[in-house]
Amino acid sequence: MEKNSEVIHLHHGSGGEHMTKLLNEVIFKILKNDVLEVRHDGAFLDVQGSLAFSTDSYVISPIFFKGGNIGELAVNGTVNDLAMCGAVPKYLSLALIIEEGFGLEEFIQIIKSVKKAADKANVKIVTGDTKVVERGKGDKIYINTSGIGVIHEKANIKAQNIKENDVIIINGAIASHGMAIMSEREGLEFDSDILSDTTNLNHTVVDLITQFGDKIHFLRDATRGGLASVLHEISAEINLGISLLEENIKVENQVKSACELLGLDPLYVANEGIFVCVAAPEIKDEVLRILQKANPKASEIGFVTAEHPSKIIIESAFGGKRVVNPLVGEQLPRIC
Amino acid sequence: MEKNSEVIHLHHGSGGEHMTKLLNEVIFKILKNDVLEVRHDGAFLDVQGSLAFSTDSYVISPIFFKGGNIGELAVNGTVNDLAMCGAVPKYLSLALIIEEGFGLEEFIQIIKSVKKAADKANVKIVTGDTKVVERGKGDKIYINTSGIGVIHEKANIKAQNIKENDVIIINGAIASHGMAIMSEREGLEFDSDILSDTTNLNHTVVDLITQFGDKIHFLRDATRGGLASVLHEISAEINLGISLLEENIKVENQVKSACELLGLDPLYVANEGIFVCVAAPEIKDEVLRILQKANPKASEIGFVTAEHPSKIIIESAFGGKRVVNPLVGEQLPRIC
Repeated sequence: MEKNSEVIHLHHGSGGEHMTKLLNEVIFKILKNDVLEVRHDGAFLDVQGSLAFSTDSYVISPIFFKGGNIGELAVNGTVNDLAMCGAVPKYLSLALIIEEGFGLEEFIQIIKSVKKAADKANVKIVTGDTKVVERGKGDKIYINTSGIGVIHEKANIKAQNIKENDVIIINGAIASHGMAIMSEREGLEFDSDILSDTTNLNHTVVDLITQFGDKIHFLRDATRGGLASVLHEISAEINLGISLLEENIKVENQVKSACELLGLDPLYVANEGIFVCVAAPEIKDEVLRILQKANPKASEIGFVTAEHPSKIIIESAFGGKRVVNPLVGEQLPRIC
Repeated sequence: MEKNSEVIHLHHGSGGEHMTKLLNEVIFKILKNDVLEVRHDGAFLDVQGSLAFSTDSYVISPIFFKGGNIGELAVNGTVNDLAMCGAVPKYLSLALIIEEGFGLEEFIQIIKSVKKAADKANVKIVTGDTKVVERGKGDKIYINTSGIGVIHEKANIKAQNIKENDVIIINGAIASHGMAIMSEREGLEFDSDILSDTTNLNHTVVDLITQFGDKIHFLRDATRGGLASVLHEISAEINLGISLLEENIKVENQVKSACELLGLDPLYVANEGIFVCVAAPEIKDEVLRILQKANPKASEIGFVTAEHPSKIIIESAFGGKRVVNPLVGEQLPRIC
């Protein structure tokens, strides 16, 4: 790009010469790979087996935050959605909606993060799209990634496979992503070292499925709406209830304090690197061992029960029990 | 949805109960199909063969226009990108970024158009995402569709296959989409009956490839940047030139007048249902016959030449010649 074009203009989305320059000198240059090189309207792929296909738009604000930025979030989020289907993520698309006036430096930084996250997850960005909208019709940058993965041959991930007494395991402490974002929200800034937990979960999931196959009954990452919302989605689909042990659900001290400060329940706060694994009870110790290698805060948080169908009940350390209700309203807009 | 919730609120993007209601009572209800029914983080697909994968975000303004709306545009656009790869489009994702306050009625109308266009193109919407952003951080609705298609077994669509003397054929009159949108732009409205040409091209492309196989050397739809930009992309890739005959490039009278009124060259105006077919010269009459069955304005507009590499030269009816330059700047922001 020319040195004097420090921001993205409407003409960068025109389909003309400026767009070609932006593509050649920034996007293709950074994301370079053999499939992208073909540069057709779509990517040509050779994929064997059953596929998973997923999409997510990322509209997070702010776009840079402690522990990450919208670029790596957009890669990790879709990689993880594919992993939760029992798939090995292979290819991603990258579609950008940029607000006119967005800084070129920040843009380049984000595309570099996309590349880094894609490499870490071992996926290729193979096709894309760039649109520019007028000032006040967007917010810096929105990113959509869609992804294709190949279903692991030993995977059989389905809500219908969940049985009574299955264990519910999560891979770390919750609510860090949401509180990292909130601590940087305009008009709300507070001092904290909370880092977003955004990361790719696909390698861990492949380890689990390779080792345990169809004894892993269900997987889902606890993003928007937090752990509580995911558990509600699960229990609604299977007409069974879930019993949780509060003391086993880890929350970092700083995160806990921030939640208290803002009056938020960590159960409903978004995560970007936390997933729920519903597994046959006989493999729980081994699953925990694998997850704790990556994150010592992985823990068994509860089990599936027929006693209170479609209800989630949490037991405190003192033995008190309460119902975990579905999330109503919106706690944290644009958290992902 | 409840009768009193006439607009989309931030809580419809929360991951909680309101979002579940919007999904169940509008989106899943309208788009219903067997794959979507599974409702996991991604769709499970069984696809055989080599694949094409494409993505596009649609940020068109206004979202309703003569001849279509953003919903069908978003389906047709990605379907056509897959078709241009020589693929039979199969599955689409649908990711929505909705501005808070967007009317529920209009939203439902758009989702219904998505469904209708998907049925017409014989593709399934199999996975999706819904985000809501604050007022002034979007513009009613932006839609991303990504798509997967299976490469036709007789297809071999590659810029590298283009040879000297190949014919360049387009399937109808140009510039209608762009001028339909411009005629309804805020502050620019003018009386016209110009209709957008948005449509799915996949069935026509399958006919061509089934009949002519690898004699169809290249296909591309002439969307953003218009016919001139697509021809520039092509000639840049192959290091050959293109000769055009101006009188063979059809423009509807109304469209021509509108272009003159706004000082626009129809060669650079966006289309949504026009594609360029570069084919071996010996099949040109048969290709034209097939395309003219669908649209009598299909025509042979020029040929590939080694005489002026990477240059596009157009000859007028009076024999005058001029160079068609690449598009510089932005004529028509948010045209798709």
